[in-house]
Amino acid sequence: MDEISLWTVFGSEVVGTAILLLLGIGVVANVVLPQTLGNGGGWLLINFGWGLAVFAGVFAGASSGAHINPAVTLGLAVSGTAEYAPGVPVTLATSLVYVAGQLVGAFLGAVLAWLTYRSHYDAATEPVLGTFSTGPTIRSIPNNVLAEVVGTFVLVYIILRFGDTPIQLGPLPVALLVVGIGASLGGPTGYAINPARDLGPRIAHAVLPIRGKGGSDWGYSWVPVVGPLLGAVLAGLFSRVPI
Amino acid sequence: MDEISLWTVFGSEVVGTAILLLLGIGVVANVVLPQTLGNGGGWLLINFGWGLAVFAGVFAGASSGAHINPAVTLGLAVSGTAEYAPGVPVTLATSLVYVAGQLVGAFLGAVLAWLTYRSHYDAATEPVLGTFSTGPTIRSIPNNVLAEVVGTFVLVYIILRFGDTPIQLGPLPVALLVVGIGASLGGPTGYAINPARDLGPRIAHAVLPIRGKGGSDWGYSWVPVVGPLLGAVLAGLFSRVPI
Amino acid sequence: MDEISLWTVFGSEVVGTAILLLLGIGVVANVVLPQTLGNGGGWLLINFGWGLAVFAGVFAGASSGAHINPAVTLGLAVSGTAEYAPGVPVTLATSLVYVAGQLVGAFLGAVLAWLTYRSHYDAATEPVLGTFSTGPTIRSIPNNVLAEVVGTFVLVYIILRFGDTPIQLGPLPVALLVVGIGASLGGPTGYAINPARDLGPRIAHAVLPIRGKGGSDWGYSWVPVVGPLLGAVLAGLFSRVPI
Amino acid sequence: MDEISLWTVFGSEVVGTAILLLLGIGVVANVVLPQTLGNGGGWLLINFGWGLAVFAGVFAGASSGAHINPAVTLGLAVSGTAEYAPGVPVTLATSLVYVAGQLVGAFLGAVLAWLTYRSHYDAATEPVLGTFSTGPTIRSIPNNVLAEVVGTFVLVYIILRFGDTPIQLGPLPVALLVVGIGASLGGPTGYAINPARDLGPRIAHAVLPIRGKGGSDWGYSWVPVVGPLLGAVLAGLFSRVPI
Repeated sequence: MDEISLWTVFGSEVVGTAILLLLGIGVVANVVLPQTLGNGGGWLLINFGWGLAVFAGVFAGASSGAHINPAVTLGLAVSGTAEYAPGVPVTLATSLVYVAGQLVGAFLGAVLAWLTYRSHYDAATEPVLGTFSTGPTIRSIPNNVLAEVVGTFVLVYIILRFGDTPIQLGPLPVALLVVGIGASLGGPTGYAINPARDLGPRIAHAVLPIRGKGGSDWGYSWVPVVGPLLGAVLAGLFSRVPI
Repeated sequence: MDEISLWTVFGSEVVGTAILLLLGIGVVANVVLPQTLGNGGGWLLINFGWGLAVFAGVFAGASSGAHINPAVTLGLAVSGTAEYAPGVPVTLATSLVYVAGQLVGAFLGAVLAWLTYRSHYDAATEPVLGTFSTGPTIRSIPNNVLAEVVGTFVLVYIILRFGDTPIQLGPLPVALLVVGIGASLGGPTGYAINPARDLGPRIAHAVLPIRGKGGSDWGYSWVPVVGPLLGAVLAGLFSRVPI
Repeated sequence: MDEISLWTVFGSEVVGTAILLLLGIGVVANVVLPQTLGNGGGWLLINFGWGLAVFAGVFAGASSGAHINPAVTLGLAVSGTAEYAPGVPVTLATSLVYVAGQLVGAFLGAVLAWLTYRSHYDAATEPVLGTFSTGPTIRSIPNNVLAEVVGTFVLVYIILRFGDTPIQLGPLPVALLVVGIGASLGGPTGYAINPARDLGPRIAHAVLPIRGKGGSDWGYSWVPVVGPLLGAVLAGLFSRVPI
Repeated sequence: MDEISLWTVFGSEVVGTAILLLLGIGVVANVVLPQTLGNGGGWLLINFGWGLAVFAGVFAGASSGAHINPAVTLGLAVSGTAEYAPGVPVTLATSLVYVAGQLVGAFLGAVLAWLTYRSHYDAATEPVLGTFSTGPTIRSIPNNVLAEVVGTFVLVYIILRFGDTPIQLGPLPVALLVVGIGASLGGPTGYAINPARDLGPRIAHAVLPIRGKGGSDWGYSWVPVVGPLLGAVLAGLFSRVPI
């Protein structure tokens, strides 16, 4: 297969991750913000919203293998794979291009979601950070980190095991996997399980002129970055165990 | 492949879009109207109802490629594809046949849904336009248009990218995509994302002898037509970017 | 392909329809009866329960093509197909074997569901017919018949159109179709859309020694038989239109 | 195909069952424990959580055929199959390895789920056994055993029939089947339908230092072991009937 240019990888990850965040932040805004049609719609609605956000994002990022998540990129590298996608070798340069595209895409997706729900953000009377980024329901750094490690471990490990079960379902398995992780492991911290998913929107929250938006909670911001990266490393290593 | 007659295209789009609207309006009626079994069933029920309405409608409109949405037809044309479906070239004539079929089908589907829920429409004590057509939760034309542009962009762009991921899931991906768009982007305006889906039932609402039906809100009616068409043009253009 | 014996057809339809009714009545009992874990679980839970009941039932009835519904058998006959399943010709004798198996299976499935929820039936303080058979939310014979005609038309017509879209998803499409019909068209009458699904359990309700069970509403019992059969005939005829 | 070592079988079942229980206990903890994001999320959320726990677990246990349930192992043996998985003959030794792996995995998964929800377990003011193991809503041993027999019969019988319907959906059918069994048959006892799923976490509950955890209800513990095994035997025998 022909080598894919780094610009294509970058663009593909930008578009895929932007779609992921547009739909992902969208569903939380729909459930949380006032006067929306989905207001109070519940956790399963949020889980399906994020799972199908992954579904759409993976189609949009097909050229680069649709990592749309630095933890996936890192987990693939650690697993010892030779290519990130057909025609994209695993190198430091390609890794950085993936992550750069993911962060830019996550930021853009958050901006688009904010624009789409603009009237509802304007109508909000409480801080809206929870629609952009994740946060702990009970603040306890060791437990919060662990929840992100475990959730991301499951995500990345199962993705790395997809190849052992030959099926042709495109992005459906990873979408369902994300629905399941959200339902089961999202309770303590809101399942970032993706550093770009959390950091890109947090930056957007900090810079966008959102009325009465409250703080961006930078004190917590490293947890949904470090936790997922740690979980990804563990998943990559564990995937090398021959079972 | 043999050329398909324009009558087949027309009939196929009529039937597919009628099934779409019958099931789509049906689920909203089930959730909103009094004394139904689904009354108060929530946003996720509505999202699955519309997604599976697309699922059924695409099977019914298979001969013509099941656009069942003028925004899809327009997006395909702008994307530069040569055929709307195997054997159907992209021309002004075929485009008009698609849209005519979609509008007629949407009108018929709305009438069928109204007949199916007749007793419940008769029992309604509030205006029922919301079961037929979409409307803004916060009326703000720029924001409302934008919500329809964004939702339709995601719909049409991802459909145009389906071909890059070879899977054999029939109408399942587009059905899940519509569930996801509804969950994530439907909060502000009810996600028309399809001019026929909104206009056909609005005409039905205007002409049907529904008891105490209230107005048809023609002042808003252009938004779910223009927004989706604009989103489709943007999606068609963006799909030409080689990523 | 070898011809399949009528005993196999009968047994296959009995088992498939019994699984369908066991799971279908089960989910309604779970939502409606007191002290269950699913009590008050909502319409979408019921819709998924019935859809996945079809999913399981179709695997169980694979040998006979898993009609598990006299309306499907009738619709296939009217559509002009030559075989009900590979090796099973369309004749009056085979048709009667299908329907007999479906009725016996539906009765047995209802008995099994009742046994499974025995403690909860004993704890019920209101009539329990609604867990066995369908009934109108607003009693109006023309509207009730129409709701069953429309729902069954969609079911049978789309099943007859499955063949035009080549996919290999086994029972998944029909399961999702039933979820969608329930969500969208089940509001007025509880979507029997299957004469055996309604009549078999009604007979079980009438003969089982259920404490304080209330009447079996035989006055309504013909509606979920005649409506679905009429819808099936219309679907079979309409499937002959070449679109 | 090469023979697979017993260590691989053991490891594969440990990992698959651990993922199953991590996600399965996770969703119940998310719905039941205080201050989680999924608190009060309802039965359908629990059903999807467990179904997708199976989905993930089956990918993780692919090498051994992913029984991840002693009832499945027993049902396969009774059905007369020659191999538990490609390269794994049905013998007493392999059977014991499967079950040992499943029990160890279930215990480990429960510990991981507890760690992930640690802060919420600490915040709980009521006994938490219900997040670890199943229990009857109405205690009646014959009815409780029957509910587990019926649920497991459906699970194992349909799995044994999967082969008659050639599809390539990987773990999706069994995941959906478990969603359906939970929705429809889980109301009386919480659908263990898997002895390891219930016993492993019950042991974890007994040994873990959980604050104010209450008793482990050993008096009931044999029901979700014996019921599923009985249901599996019946399913294995019934699968030999040629329909």
